This record gives sequence, structure tokens and C-alpha cells, in this order.
Amino acid sequence: MIKAAILGYGTVGSGIFEILNSNKETISKKTGNDIEVKYVLDLREFPGDPVEKVLVHDFDIIVNDKEVDIVAEAMGGVEPAYTFAKKAIESGKSFCTSNKELVAKHGAELLKLAKEHKVNFLFEASVGGGIPIIRPLNSSLTPEYVEEITGILNGTTNYMMTKMSKEGLDFDSVLKDAQDKGYAERNPEADIEGYDACRKIAILSSIAYGKQVDFEDIHTEGITNISDTDMVYAAKLNKAIKLLGTSYKENGKVTAMVAPMLVDNESPLYAVNDVFNAILVKGNMLGEVMFYGKGAGKLATASAVVSDIIEEAKNIGNTLTCVWEADKIELNDFSCASNVFFVRVNASLKDKVSSIFGDVETVDAGVDNEYAFITKKMTEGEFADKTEQLGGIINKIRVKC
Amino acid sequence: MIKAAILGYGTVGSGIFEILNSNKETISKKTGNDIEVKYVLDLREFPGDPVEKVLVHDFDIIVNDKEVDIVAEAMGGVEPAYTFAKKAIESGKSFCTSNKELVAKHGAELLKLAKEHKVNFLFEASVGGGIPIIRPLNSSLTPEYVEEITGILNGTTNYMMTKMSKEGLDFDSVLKDAQDKGYAERNPEADIEGYDACRKIAILSSIAYGKQVDFEDIHTEGITNISDTDMVYAAKLNKAIKLLGTSYKENGKVTAMVAPMLVDNESPLYAVNDVFNAILVKGNMLGEVMFYGKGAGKLATASAVVSDIIEEAKNIGNTLTCVWEADKIELNDFSCASNVFFVRVNASLKDKVSSIFGDVETVDAGVDNEYAFITKKMTEGEFADKTEQLGGIINKIRVKC
Repeated sequence: MIKAAILGYGTVGSGIFEILNSNKETISKKTGNDIEVKYVLDLREFPGDPVEKVLVHDFDIIVNDKEVDIVAEAMGGVEPAYTFAKKAIESGKSFCTSNKELVAKHGAELLKLAKEHKVNFLFEASVGGGIPIIRPLNSSLTPEYVEEITGILNGTTNYMMTKMSKEGLDFDSVLKDAQDKGYAERNPEADIEGYDACRKIAILSSIAYGKQVDFEDIHTEGITNISDTDMVYAAKLNKAIKLLGTSYKENGKVTAMVAPMLVDNESPLYAVNDVFNAILVKGNMLGEVMFYGKGAGKLATASAVVSDIIEEAKNIGNTLTCVWEADKIELNDFSCASNVFFVRVNASLKDKVSSIFGDVETVDAGVDNEYAFITKKMTEGEFADKTEQLGGIINKIRVKC
Repeated sequence: MIKAAILGYGTVGSGIFEILNSNKETISKKTGNDIEVKYVLDLREFPGDPVEKVLVHDFDIIVNDKEVDIVAEAMGGVEPAYTFAKKAIESGKSFCTSNKELVAKHGAELLKLAKEHKVNFLFEASVGGGIPIIRPLNSSLTPEYVEEITGILNGTTNYMMTKMSKEGLDFDSVLKDAQDKGYAERNPEADIEGYDACRKIAILSSIAYGKQVDFEDIHTEGITNISDTDMVYAAKLNKAIKLLGTSYKENGKVTAMVAPMLVDNESPLYAVNDVFNAILVKGNMLGEVMFYGKGAGKLATASAVVSDIIEEAKNIGNTLTCVWEADKIELNDFSCASNVFFVRVNASLKDKVSSIFGDVETVDAGVDNEYAFITKKMTEGEFADKTEQLGGIINKIRVKC
């Protein structure tokens, strides 16, 4: 019998509790042992809920209980999760978490600490909700040098982009709809400004390239500039606009970015709609593989945490390998990153476009008073210079190559 | 230093040798140890090839060498692979393989044998080529009761279906094209009759439900009945025709089948084209996740074998869990399986259709002298009865629900 504790009885925490109880039999079989939840930590009371019998309000009860081998955290936010993680690991307990802020900031350090204490620190649920991606990177794509990792990492914004594309609605309407459905927060900044996707691509990149990628270093744009008119152009181009987190290696340097991009209908990412997420990994031997599923939601995310609990239960005394060193990757200066741009300008600027940008591909989607075009590949720096010479644009969206 | 041997220096075997050499540095880091190929077994000579230095022609040299911890097999076929696997495992060596015939037939037995000898028997490459699917089932989807597993499991036939769909070609032309490109064998039976996909869905189902699913028990139809006219109807229906291997649990019984099916454009499987494979798994907590990538090819398949070698190197003395018991699942009698059918009949039978099938959905794709319709859900037995009453049909394709 392995004893576990859950920190936080919110959406994900209660999902973990539910899955460990309702799928007990298959979990025992796969673990080769029973897993019992000895404690759930939450400041609140839950009268009448089955959690009552194991509810505690003081973390020290958990950390001081030698019977507890595994602590699963689902509170979110860096503190007190970070302090709890350190204390649990230092007490010889394995720790797992769905908390992307904690992992993006302290992943390398907590992995090292876990190794020193011969326990595990796992975080499958921190990226892609229920999609297996962290463990496949650590134990399936192990023969590969990762050349690129690109994902639709935020379900809320993907729902919004899908709805704008399919129903021709404007940004504000779909944001309201997403809020009404509970997909977007009342304060939607973390989703629509790309901050959530940014932490996730930072975590993925750190594992893919084996060293720390700081999320603060990643160029991040959200979807707030995307309009219903952009969707008209996208449809004309047989492309979809997706908020992508992406990083890739070129000439020995890693470039990373979060931005809405035009994805071609030949890409497997094109058909990833609604609240679904997908992560595409390109290995030097394997080529492209993609992992697809629900990027959020109570039971999907909780299932990923439970899979970590099971791995930790199977590996008491054995630290699983995750190559994520603390020394930092110096990302490629973003102004040197090369991209292809779709650009909309005032119709009067058409002639100026060809004199400044040279040969471009004109895109005619029947929009009045506008001229739209696709540039050749150029650096972000060059593009900024040229748009300045042009004297202003309506919008630009990068084209995923 | 871990020493390994490769059995077979054909396409996959030489790919394993190549990856272990050219990605040596990242592999050592991920393994925490160097992996050296001590032997490659092949009956042939390879003068001038770097393999020469380690080439042997006698399996006994490998099995009797106590330094060899891992044997990777890439010869194909049940024998002598089965004998070699047993001997290697009984000598305390871990074994891994890309050989679906071997795994479908002897998987449960070799897993048990490996456990008894405290070694590992792994077979990631036997299904889906380079796509991580076996390990995710065994170590990521562990909290789940699997309700369904459905895959595009054969790249050759998916290439053919894609080409017929996109270019309006007939079956014989695309088969010839696939053969010219080296995707299809001169004798293409294993692919186009669905036998290859059948072994793969048998392996996946055995792991998904934890007990032996015999491939001989799975109802298997190939794609030889699919014509360019069927593709016209599929396009009209916004669906794609895909050869699917599928199994699902309903009322406690597992139904399994390989057959071409009409897949809706809202399904993530719809956009899986060309030689790509994808496997969709539905868990009772997680919902749907999908794994996508190259289902065949030298380096993709070899990469999956190397990932097994790495896992085995990391787990010397520790047998990884794979729940696949030898006792057999009695599959649902196929005549009791429920499906929705798309049916084409001679135009003269239109009235008879409504009297026999009741309310159906008519499909008008502008094909002369034909009447086409989609039935309600009914058992295979009922459908067979009704088509007999009808006195013959042109073709039927099941509709994926």
C-alpha cells in the first residue's frame, strides 16, 4: 500500500481524488500496489464530501508523516507550492504537480533536489492537460535530437480562434462566449495575451533541449489583435490562425516565440480545434510526431497527475531521468529570428509595398480598401524596418513554415 | 557501458545501428550510460560497411556472451525471432523488437518470461513505427479504463486512400504507384487485405484491455473493394475513407475489427494523410487522446527500437510493468456488433431499400444509375439479412461513429 497526499481540493485536486477512487482497480493493477489517499490539504471545509475523512488544513501533518510517499500538488501559483515541494522532497517524498508556474520557474532546481533525495519530481499535467507529452519526451523520444517543438498549448484561445473562424464572429463576442462557458476567466489576460502558452513552451523547450529556457526570455504575443477580417484572409489562404508556442534549433541557436500564426491545411495542427491542444515534436531521426488531446478540464488534467502518482509509486527509491539542467540557454535574439509575414495595409500603400518589400504574394480576399500580401522570409528586424518605412500597417500574422 | 546486439541488418536493423552511432551523445545523456553495439547478426556480408567490425553469423555468440545485456531484433517473421527472443531472455538479456508478427503471437508469453528472468521485453516499434504508443499506454494512460482504441495503422493503405481521394485515381493505379515508390510490396496482400493492421490492433487491444486478443479472432476487411466512385461519395459527405483498426468495450464485451470506414471531417483521424499513422485512445476519465507520426520507414521505426534499448539500459534488473495477461478475451460475436452503413445499390432498388431498411439518409453524389444511402445503426447480422433481402449491393462502407 502506497500512501499519497493531495494539496488543494479545487478542480484538479478533486479530480485526482475522484480518479484514484473510481479507477482504483485498474490503477492497482498497473501500479502493482494499492494507492491510498491519506490526506487532502485545503483551507476550506467540505461538509458531506467524501474528502472530509482525509481533509487536513496544515501541511506539516503531511510532511511529518513518514507513511506518505507521494505528494500531488494542484493548487497553482508559485507560492506556497514551491515551499511545499521543497519540504516534501527534502522529507524523502516524491512530488508531482499540474502547476506550470511552479515548473517553469523552479523545474530544474526541483528535479535536482529530487535526484539528491532519491525521489521523483514529475509534472506531466503542467503542459497539455491530459495529453501525454512530458513522459514521452523523457522516455520515448530519447534517441532524438529535438529540432523543433510547436504546440497549440492553450485551449481557451484555441476555442476562440476556432469559433471566430467557423462562425465569423468578432473577438469580443467570442471572448464573452468563452467566459460564459467557463473556458476563459473573468480576467482573461493569462490566456489571451499568451502568458499561459509561454510558460508551457518554456517547460517543453527546457526538456527538449536539456537546459533551462526562461519564460521571461520568450517573445510573446497574444491573440487580441486577431479580427474577423483576419479570419476571412485565413480562409482564403486555406490556413487557420492558431496561437502557437514554438521553439526550434537553427545554426546551433534556439529561437522561441508565442504568437498567433497562419497554419497550412496540410499541417496536422490545422485540424486541432476547439479546446483541444496538440504538441508537435520534430526529431532529427524520427521526423514529426504529434500528441493530441484535451488541454484542460478537471478529469483530463487530473488523469495526467494520477499517471505521475502511479509512476512515482512504481519508482520508490529510483529517480527517473529528466535531462533539464539549470544552466540557461541563451535564446536567439528575437530580432534575428526569420519569419514569413502575412501583412494587411491600407490600399493606398500598394505601390509602396512592392518598392519596399520587393516581390510579394498578393492575397485578395475581397476586403475593401485594403491590400494584403505575404512576404518572403526575413528577419524580425528587417520586417520591423520595412514596416516603419511603409508608415504603418493594419495587422500582420506570421506564417508557419 | 551497456553492450547491445542487433539481430538483422536490413532496413530497420541498419537504422538502429545508425541512430546509436550518430546520436550517441544525446543517447548517453538520456541513458546515463554509454550504449555500444557489440554484435550485429546477419547471414549476409557487408564489405566496406562500418558494421563489418561487429558482424556475426551465429546467434550463439551473442546469447553466450555475458557482456551483452540487450538484444534488439529487426528480422521480422515469427521464426527464428521467437526462438532467439526466448533464448536471449532465458540468458538474462533484455529483448526488444519491431516485429508485429512475433508480438501479436507471443507477446503475453515473452512478457511473462521476461518478468521471471528480471529483464524486459519491449516492442514500441511493432505498432505505429516511430509513434510513441506502447509506452504511453503502459506508463501514461495508466489511470484509465480504455473504452476504445482506433488507429490508422498501415501507412501503405493510407497513402493509397489519400491518393485516390485527392487525385481521383482508381485502386489499381494507386497500388501501382505505391509499389513504384517502394511503399507497397510486390505482393501487397498483407497491407491491402488488412492483415498488417489486424496484428497491430490485436497488440494494442491486448495492452489496452490487459488480456490476450488473438488476431485470428478479429474481423478483417481490406481496401480492395474501395473504388474511385466511393471516393466521390466520401467527398460529398465531407468524410474520408480510412482503413481503421478499432476495438471498443460495450456492455462489458470487446468488439474488434479492421475495415475501411468513413471518417467525419470533425474527427482528428480525418486529416491523417499519406503514409502517416495515428492512434486514438479513449479513456473513461481522459476522453480522447491521439498519437500521430510516421508509421513506417527506416529511421522512424529504428528510433522507436532505440528508445526501447535506452529504457532497457536504464532498467537493468527492473522489469517494467505491462499488463497483458495470457488468458484470452472472448471477443463479441461480430454478427452482434452494431454499425452504421453507407450503401450503394442499383438505382432500380431505391423503393425496395425504404421498405427493407425503413428510414435512411439518401446520399446524392451525382453518380448515374445508382442509389446510395446511410442506414441507422444496426447489427452486422441484421445488415447481412437486409442486404440479402435486397438481392445484392454495389458496395458498403461502415461509417465511423
